[in-house]
Amino acid sequence: MKLKTYLPILEWGSRYNRDSLTSDLVAAVIVTIMLIPQSLAYALLAGLPPEVGLYASVLPLVAYAIFGTSTALAVGPVAVVSLMTASAIGSIAAEGTVDYASAAILLAAMSGIILAVLGLFRLGFIANFLSHPVISGFITASGLIIATSQVGGMLGIKTEGHALPELVMSIVHNIGTINWYTLAVGAVSLALLLWIRMDLKNWLIRFGLPKGAVTIITRAGPVLVVFLTMAWSVLGDLGARGVALVGDVPQGLPMLSLPNFNLDTMQALLLPALIISIVGFVESISVAQTLAAKRRQRIDPNQELIGLGAANIAAAVGGGYPVTGGFARSVVNFDAGAATPAAGAFTAIGIAGATLLLTPFLAILPKATLAATIIVAVLTLVDFSILKRAWTYSKADFTAVAITLLGTLLMGVEVGISLGVAASILIFLYRSSQPHAAVVGQVPGTEHFRNVKRHDVHTIPSVLSIRVDESLYFANARYLEDLVYGEVAGRPELKDVVLMCSAVNAIDMSALESLEAIQHQLQDLGVRLHLSEVKGPVMDRLAGTEFLQHLSGGVHLSQHQAMEAIKALPAAA
Amino acid sequence: MKLKTYLPILEWGSRYNRDSLTSDLVAAVIVTIMLIPQSLAYALLAGLPPEVGLYASVLPLVAYAIFGTSTALAVGPVAVVSLMTASAIGSIAAEGTVDYASAAILLAAMSGIILAVLGLFRLGFIANFLSHPVISGFITASGLIIATSQVGGMLGIKTEGHALPELVMSIVHNIGTINWYTLAVGAVSLALLLWIRMDLKNWLIRFGLPKGAVTIITRAGPVLVVFLTMAWSVLGDLGARGVALVGDVPQGLPMLSLPNFNLDTMQALLLPALIISIVGFVESISVAQTLAAKRRQRIDPNQELIGLGAANIAAAVGGGYPVTGGFARSVVNFDAGAATPAAGAFTAIGIAGATLLLTPFLAILPKATLAATIIVAVLTLVDFSILKRAWTYSKADFTAVAITLLGTLLMGVEVGISLGVAASILIFLYRSSQPHAAVVGQVPGTEHFRNVKRHDVHTIPSVLSIRVDESLYFANARYLEDLVYGEVAGRPELKDVVLMCSAVNAIDMSALESLEAIQHQLQDLGVRLHLSEVKGPVMDRLAGTEFLQHLSGGVHLSQHQAMEAIKALPAAA
Repeated sequence: MKLKTYLPILEWGSRYNRDSLTSDLVAAVIVTIMLIPQSLAYALLAGLPPEVGLYASVLPLVAYAIFGTSTALAVGPVAVVSLMTASAIGSIAAEGTVDYASAAILLAAMSGIILAVLGLFRLGFIANFLSHPVISGFITASGLIIATSQVGGMLGIKTEGHALPELVMSIVHNIGTINWYTLAVGAVSLALLLWIRMDLKNWLIRFGLPKGAVTIITRAGPVLVVFLTMAWSVLGDLGARGVALVGDVPQGLPMLSLPNFNLDTMQALLLPALIISIVGFVESISVAQTLAAKRRQRIDPNQELIGLGAANIAAAVGGGYPVTGGFARSVVNFDAGAATPAAGAFTAIGIAGATLLLTPFLAILPKATLAATIIVAVLTLVDFSILKRAWTYSKADFTAVAITLLGTLLMGVEVGISLGVAASILIFLYRSSQPHAAVVGQVPGTEHFRNVKRHDVHTIPSVLSIRVDESLYFANARYLEDLVYGEVAGRPELKDVVLMCSAVNAIDMSALESLEAIQHQLQDLGVRLHLSEVKGPVMDRLAGTEFLQHLSGGVHLSQHQAMEAIKALPAAA
Repeated sequence: MKLKTYLPILEWGSRYNRDSLTSDLVAAVIVTIMLIPQSLAYALLAGLPPEVGLYASVLPLVAYAIFGTSTALAVGPVAVVSLMTASAIGSIAAEGTVDYASAAILLAAMSGIILAVLGLFRLGFIANFLSHPVISGFITASGLIIATSQVGGMLGIKTEGHALPELVMSIVHNIGTINWYTLAVGAVSLALLLWIRMDLKNWLIRFGLPKGAVTIITRAGPVLVVFLTMAWSVLGDLGARGVALVGDVPQGLPMLSLPNFNLDTMQALLLPALIISIVGFVESISVAQTLAAKRRQRIDPNQELIGLGAANIAAAVGGGYPVTGGFARSVVNFDAGAATPAAGAFTAIGIAGATLLLTPFLAILPKATLAATIIVAVLTLVDFSILKRAWTYSKADFTAVAITLLGTLLMGVEVGISLGVAASILIFLYRSSQPHAAVVGQVPGTEHFRNVKRHDVHTIPSVLSIRVDESLYFANARYLEDLVYGEVAGRPELKDVVLMCSAVNAIDMSALESLEAIQHQLQDLGVRLHLSEVKGPVMDRLAGTEFLQHLSGGVHLSQHQAMEAIKALPAAA
C-alpha cells in the first residue's frame, strides 16, 4: 500500500505489543540519560544556547518515529553537523544574536525540505558520490577541528574560526588569559569522563553489579559529571572567579513557530544546507544499514531521506537546529534493545521532561564541563588509520582521503568536503579516460582468453584480439583509436582484429564515431574488424547503426567462437 | 632526439626538396586568396578592426610551421574562436577602444601560454572531455549565433549581444533603421558568394577550363566579390548614402610588441582563455587527424598543443587575436597538395604582401560584404542532423547535444559549452552509478556464460552467478550490496555466490568495503562467496587485502572453472 510506504509507523504500529513496549522503554531511558549532556554540549558547539540542543532532541525524534524505517537509529544533534551549522551560520550572523538563532532554525528547515524532496523524488543515490575515503577523511578532520575548538572552553579563553589554522592561532594569541579555575573544572570533567568511558564498566563488573545496573550507571556517568560540576560551581562560587557558566536560559519548552524564510539568508544557506543534508544522510544511513543488517532487516534509503527530512522540519518548528542519526547513541539504542522507532518517541518524552526539570539549574553549569563532554565524544571520530589503509590499497583512494582531510582542516568543512568529492570524481574520470587494455590469447585446453603478458596463452599471427577494460565513451574514444592503430602498426601479416567487449559496458556516440574511424582505417589496410562478447544492452544500441551494417568482420557470442569463425574465413582481401 | 620532438621542422626540413617546394607554393597561393576576405571578416566578427585579422594570419602561420606536426593544417582566425573572443572581451571593454584591442592581444597570449603548458605537461587528454555530441551542439549553436550577429551588418542596423535572444531583440528593435543601400550591397554579395560556392565550379568545368584554373578561380571568387563591392562603393558613393565602410586603417604591418599583462584583466580572461584554448585545440586536432589519416600520417596531440600555443603567442606579439586551425582552409590546403608545414609559412608571406598592398584600399570596402562572407562561411557549421542521430542512438547523447545547443544559443558560448561538458560527465557518472547487471548461466555446449534473461542457458539452484557490468567504485558500491542481497533473498537453497568480474575494471576502497560487507552477510547465511574472471590489475590490488584472505569461496580464472570447482566442493556449512 502506498500510504504504508511513506508512513512506516502504520506498518510496525499495527504489530506493536507489550514486549516491544518494554524493550523500547528500557532503551529510551538509557538513550535519554546519554543524550542530555550531549545535546547541551553540541548546541554550544553549533554556537547556540545549550537549551537549543534539548529542543532539537524532542520533536525531531517524534517525527523520525513516524516517518523513519530504522528500528535502532537515534536522531538528534550530532558533533559533525553541529560544527557544519556553526560554519554555515558563522559567516552570515554573529554568535549570540537573534539572527544567529533564527538562521539555525532556517538552516534546519531548508535541510529538512532538501532531504524530503530528495526522498520523494528517489534521489538518494546522490549520497553515493560521497566515497568512503572522502567520508573518513572528512570525519577525522571534523573531529580534530571540533576537539581543537573546545580547547578554548577548557582553558577559559576565547577562540574563533571553524578551521584549524584560525583556531590554533587564536588559542596561541589568547593563551595568556587562561582562567585556572576553568582549567581545573575542565580537566577534572575530562578525566572523569575518560575514566567513565574506559574503566567504569570493568570496575562495576568487578564489584559484582548486575549487567543492567552496570549499563545504566555507565550511561548515566556523564550526567553525574554534569551534576558534580554544578555542585562545585555553587559551592566554589566559580562564577565569581571568572569561570564561564551557561547562565540563565528560558524555562520550559519553546513555542512552536514557523521559520523566517528570508530570501537573502536562504540564498546564503543553500549550499551549506545541501552539504549538511547529504553528510547527515550519509552518516545516518551508514549506521542504520549496519544495525539493520545485524537483525537481518532492510531499510529503504529513500524513505530514510523522508524520515530525516521530517525530523529536520520538526527541528525547525520546535526551535532547534539541524539533526541527524548519531552513531554512538544509535549503537546504545540498539544494544539496549530498542525494538521499534517508538523508542525514539519515548526518548523525546524523556528529554522534554528533562528540559522542564533541568532548565532552572542549567544557569550554574560550567561551560568547561560541556567542552570536556564534546572532546570525549569526538575523539572516537578521529581515525588516521584510514590514511595508511588507503595508501596500501590504492594511491587514488589515498589522494582522495588526503585532499579531503587537509582541505577540511585548513579551509573548513564545506570547502574540504567539496574538494574531496571533486577529487574523487576527477580521479575516477581520469582513470577511465586511460583504460587498461590487453592483447589476449587462448588459455590452452580452455575456451578462455587472457592477457598475453600475464598468462601463457596461444595466439595466431594473422589475428589480433584486444580486450579494452572500460566502457567506451567520449573521454577514452580517442585513446581507443591510438591503441588500435598502435597495435596494428607492427603486424604486417594481420588479417583480422577482434575487439573483445566483455568489459565494455556502454558505447556512446563519440566512441561509435571512433569505432567507425577504426573500421575505415582497417578496411584501407585490408584488415577485417570483428567484435566478440558484446553485452546485450550494448548490442541493442549498436543494432540500428551504420557501423554494424558495414562491419567488415562479424559479431561473435564469445571470443572462442570468434576465433573459430575467423579460422573458417578465407584470407581477407 | 629530444629537440626534434619539440621542433618538428628539424625533421621535415632536413628532407625538404624541390617537389615539396612546388606543392607547398601552389597550396599557399590558393589558401592566401581564400584567407584574405575571411581574415578581414572574422576580425570584424571578433569586434576588432579588419586589418587585425590579416595580422593574425602572418606570424601565427610561421610559428605553427616551426612547431606544428600536421602537414595540412592551416592556422589563422576562425569563426567560432572569433565569436568566443568577442564574447570574452565584450564583457570587460567597449568595442573600438584601445582597451578592447589590447585585451584581444592579451587573450591570445594567455591562450597561447595555456596551450603550450598543456602540451609541455602532456595534458592533451583533457580535450577528450569535450564529447562529440557537445562539440557538435556547440558548433551548430555558434554558427547560428554568428549568422544572426551578421544580419545587422547586412541591413545596416546596430545589433548587440553574443547570444540569440539579445541579438534577435536588438534586430527587432532597430529594424526601422534599415539602410537600403547597405541591404543591396549585402544581398548582392551574399547571392554572389553562394553562387560561387555552389555553382561556379560546375559552370567553369562546363566551359571546358582546365582543373587548375577552375580551382584558382573558384577560390578567388570571394576576393573578386570584395573588389567588386569596393568598385561599387566608389562609383555609387555608398559612404555618403549611409553604407558602413571599413574606413581608414593603419598602413603596413604592425610593430612587434609584448602584450600588456594587466592582472585584473588577466583574471577576468582566465576562464574564457581556457575555454577558447580547449575548443580551438579540439577543432584543430580533429581536422589535423582526419587529414593525416588520409595520408597514413600520425600527428602528436601534445606537440600540436605546443604548435597552437606558439601560434597564439605569435598572434599576440604580432598584434592579432586568438587563432586556431580552420576546417575549410585546411581541407583546401590539403586538396591543393600542401606537402609540409612550409605551405603555411608561404601563406604567411602571401598575407603579409596582401596586407601591404590592400590596406590603402580597405577604407572603401562596405562592411556588408564582410558580413555576407561570414554568413556563407558559417552556414556549413550549422548541422541539426546531429540531434536526430543522437536521439536515435541514445537519449543520453541527445541530452548532452540539446543542453549544449540550447545553453549556447540562450546563454552564450562560455556558459553553453560548460553546461554541455558538465552534463555529459554527470550523465556518465549517473549511468555508472546504476550499472547493468545480469544473473548468468552456461550457454549449453560451450564454456561461455551469459545473461539468463537473454540466452537459453543452464543454471544450478544452489549457485548464483552475477555479472556486474561496471567497475566497482564509490558511486555504485551501495548499489552492489543491494543487488546481491536482493538476488540472494529469494533463493533459500543457495550455497554459493559467484561474482563474475569480467566487466569489473577496477575496485576502489569503497567497493572493497561493500565486498567485505557482502562477504560477512553471506557468511552469516551459510553461503560462500567466489570471484571469477578477475582481471590482472584488479587482482594485483586485491592481493594483499583482508577481504581476499578471508574469502569464503575461491578466486577462479574463468566462470567455467568456478562452476567446476564449486561442483567438486562439499555443501557449505
